[in-house]
Amino acid sequence: MDFKLWLNNKVEIVEKALKDNFVRNENRQKLIYDAMEYSLFAGGKRLRSVIMLGVNEIFSNDYKSVLPFACAMEMIHTYSLIHDDLPSMDNDDYRRGKLSNHKKFGEAAAILAGDGLLNMAFEVMSRESLKFDTDKELLLKAISIIAESSGSEGMIGGQIVDMFCEESINDISDLEYLQKHKTGAIIKSSAAVGALLGGASETELKTIEKFADNLGLAFQIQDDILDVEGSAEKLGKPVGSDESNNKKTYVSMLGLEEAKKLQKKLTNEAIEALGIFDEKSEMLIELCKYLLVREK
Amino acid sequence: MDFKLWLNNKVEIVEKALKDNFVRNENRQKLIYDAMEYSLFAGGKRLRSVIMLGVNEIFSNDYKSVLPFACAMEMIHTYSLIHDDLPSMDNDDYRRGKLSNHKKFGEAAAILAGDGLLNMAFEVMSRESLKFDTDKELLLKAISIIAESSGSEGMIGGQIVDMFCEESINDISDLEYLQKHKTGAIIKSSAAVGALLGGASETELKTIEKFADNLGLAFQIQDDILDVEGSAEKLGKPVGSDESNNKKTYVSMLGLEEAKKLQKKLTNEAIEALGIFDEKSEMLIELCKYLLVREK
Repeated sequence: MDFKLWLNNKVEIVEKALKDNFVRNENRQKLIYDAMEYSLFAGGKRLRSVIMLGVNEIFSNDYKSVLPFACAMEMIHTYSLIHDDLPSMDNDDYRRGKLSNHKKFGEAAAILAGDGLLNMAFEVMSRESLKFDTDKELLLKAISIIAESSGSEGMIGGQIVDMFCEESINDISDLEYLQKHKTGAIIKSSAAVGALLGGASETELKTIEKFADNLGLAFQIQDDILDVEGSAEKLGKPVGSDESNNKKTYVSMLGLEEAKKLQKKLTNEAIEALGIFDEKSEMLIELCKYLLVREK
Repeated sequence: MDFKLWLNNKVEIVEKALKDNFVRNENRQKLIYDAMEYSLFAGGKRLRSVIMLGVNEIFSNDYKSVLPFACAMEMIHTYSLIHDDLPSMDNDDYRRGKLSNHKKFGEAAAILAGDGLLNMAFEVMSRESLKFDTDKELLLKAISIIAESSGSEGMIGGQIVDMFCEESINDISDLEYLQKHKTGAIIKSSAAVGALLGGASETELKTIEKFADNLGLAFQIQDDILDVEGSAEKLGKPVGSDESNNKKTYVSMLGLEEAKKLQKKLTNEAIEALGIFDEKSEMLIELCKYLLVREK
């Protein structure tokens, strides 16, 4: 199968599921839906949900019960971007080529839109899970994995380290700790939930987690590289912000060439982990290669 | 049984469960736990979880599986207060006689602490639910009820109406719409989950929801009354803020005497709804009376 076709198909499935699950009302609280919708449908890559669906199809042909979880990941990812962009956080005016949420709707509405999306992620997972025949214990476990990955031992923990503990980042293992929490945790949980709901065994789940750990770090390094080498037009946000903010990144700590080497190494390790699944992981392997050379 | 003893016992059970379920680490992200803990253990009334436990014991003698949900309600309530107090929202410097979270930890940490508590509510519910023998479908349903009540059709929706649609509040039914979302929704879901997990029938659940609807509004009216008649010392926050902020309240729209009459009427309706449960609802009835005369 052609990878680009596969990818476009997965993104389409996710976009449709998001539209189906983003239940909005035209009532008095219309503004909260406008603000949530603005960022949720701002043209994200849907990477986390594509990974979830891609992993899931190694194990299963029925992705329907996975979709609410894929939607939840996109809602959680989007809320984290809205809150990260706030003036008291990274103070970013643009995101994906559009005004950031607080620039468009004001700070209070942006905070509430973020809260609303985080909350909606759990609304969708719990409500939709009730509609499926899938073992309810497995669905609860999936909610639990996602909740843990986005919380204080996961993404939120990473964000607080990034905001307040920059001085504690002294070597690559410190940076890895930060990124495994801030960006890696929800990439890993996306993969894990895809595997779990597909019926993966314990060993298979561990293999998938190893794949996702490596892919998540490689993804982050590419982000750091794009901030140096990328195009503001393609990225939809200014480049060079890491350097001007004195941020510690893989590029600033390793230099551009070493960062690229590490990124390739991690991508290869992600691909190697998938080896046990033979041709069933073909598209995921293509995804790893695609992310290595992405320009946005 | 003596009501005050009963109430203290319930609050103690909740405090202990919160300490057990607030799993913190002394790792790099220590700050997020400090900020979350600061507000979660700031001496709240634990009203929502007391209502949940009080309703539950009408139907069941085993409250253990309800505790994670009681903790979740306190986490959700606390996060909403942290975010409400932010400069871009109500800009309040004090809460429960202490500095508000952003005054103590700064705005970025306060936003993340709120996010962390909302997220932790779902972590606790999903993780702990996996440990109980209770029907997993019922537990998923309970998570779903809570998620809906705290989201854009519940508490967050109420907050956005309060912040941005003040001009649409023209009569008591408008104000009721606002309060049923902003404060009523999670009081109602607390009662509903207590009933559901206790094994209540559909009819019993509806009765409990009617009770909680009336109690929630009566509770809000008492809040409005205390902002006029209360003591700043007892409340732990300044009084008169509604008037100085030109807020539409039951007192400003009805006058003090009529507001008090309505509050009594709603309290009586809450108590009457409990009638079908006979002596089993004795303590909940005492709780209604207690909330009618509370000073903080």
